[in-house]
Amino acid sequence: MNTPLTAPLIEFFWDPVSPYTYLASTRIEALAQRVGARLEWKPFLLGPVFEAIGNRPNIAIAPKGRYMLDDLALLARHLGVPLQQPQPFPTNSVHANRAALAAPADQLPAFARALMRAYWGEGRDIGRPEIVLAVAAECGLDAPTLAERAQSPEIKTRLRELTDEAIARGVFGAPTFFVGGRMYWGNDRMDLMEAVLSGRLAV
Amino acid sequence: MNTPLTAPLIEFFWDPVSPYTYLASTRIEALAQRVGARLEWKPFLLGPVFEAIGNRPNIAIAPKGRYMLDDLALLARHLGVPLQQPQPFPTNSVHANRAALAAPADQLPAFARALMRAYWGEGRDIGRPEIVLAVAAECGLDAPTLAERAQSPEIKTRLRELTDEAIARGVFGAPTFFVGGRMYWGNDRMDLMEAVLSGRLAV
Repeated sequence: MNTPLTAPLIEFFWDPVSPYTYLASTRIEALAQRVGARLEWKPFLLGPVFEAIGNRPNIAIAPKGRYMLDDLALLARHLGVPLQQPQPFPTNSVHANRAALAAPADQLPAFARALMRAYWGEGRDIGRPEIVLAVAAECGLDAPTLAERAQSPEIKTRLRELTDEAIARGVFGAPTFFVGGRMYWGNDRMDLMEAVLSGRLAV
Repeated sequence: MNTPLTAPLIEFFWDPVSPYTYLASTRIEALAQRVGARLEWKPFLLGPVFEAIGNRPNIAIAPKGRYMLDDLALLARHLGVPLQQPQPFPTNSVHANRAALAAPADQLPAFARALMRAYWGEGRDIGRPEIVLAVAAECGLDAPTLAERAQSPEIKTRLRELTDEAIARGVFGAPTFFVGGRMYWGNDRMDLMEAVLSGRLAV
């Protein structure tokens, strides 16, 4: 996108372990283009956020976990995107998120989308480093270089910083978007965010 | 509505303490009319449901509670409905729900909507029995008769049964809708439910 630097910025906090973040990842680029916004993909770890604030994943509440699977299947069909229940779920997304941060900045969005599609669309366990690198290679990234950089102290620190930033800014789930000072939580708030960004709704 | 008994049925589990249920209550009748569905208003108590399944209200997670207030304000403005942060929140909805069940069946929907509008739109504490009866009188109901019937063993039992039914059917929050065997959770799923009911999306 050749969006000017003066355009509004959407910060997109994503963790590929979150299924609703996967759904959001299939639609956020088109939304940003429609409203002429810049988009920043910010990987973070949902687990430490939940731990810090005492939140729990949907699957920790049995009926909520059961509902989520039906809900996701219907939503995915409605949006026309592939969905598979991955095994295992949840998985450890630390390798995937470090690899995303280790990728060249202009390739991070496509790689992030591919990671979520691999896990939620194809059921591949991105908790395994070799799967993460296979997805990277499919995106045209240099997997050996990426693997080395993903293990660097700089990248590990950056992921911790982003997770801390999420906590400090009040994130409690994923996906979470920020536009200006305002937070939007969930795939379900993308329409409202677009209404604001397009000037149809004043904040 | 003169909807035939063969029309699909939307069961609407509502508790007036839930703000997103208030928002849903302002839109569900129009939705049912658009798709030609019957609508059954089923009051229940969210507190015992949360207790039974280990769920917690949004406000129990500090950042989620803070977000909810901003989110509700923006959503309400988007939907064009009044919203006030009621005091106290939460409140005890047992009197309101019993009174709703004590009302004549054909007046329950209007009374239910009025209870939610009183609490969330006008900030009146419907946890207090005298406020519940004032709202009933505003709806043209006979408040003294209602007050007596609301305290009957039959009504108390009926509310417990509806709450148990909600738990047994996998309800974990409010609003919750059922159409056929399928559950839809939240004001945010009304569009998807409408897509299914109107035949645009196959389940």
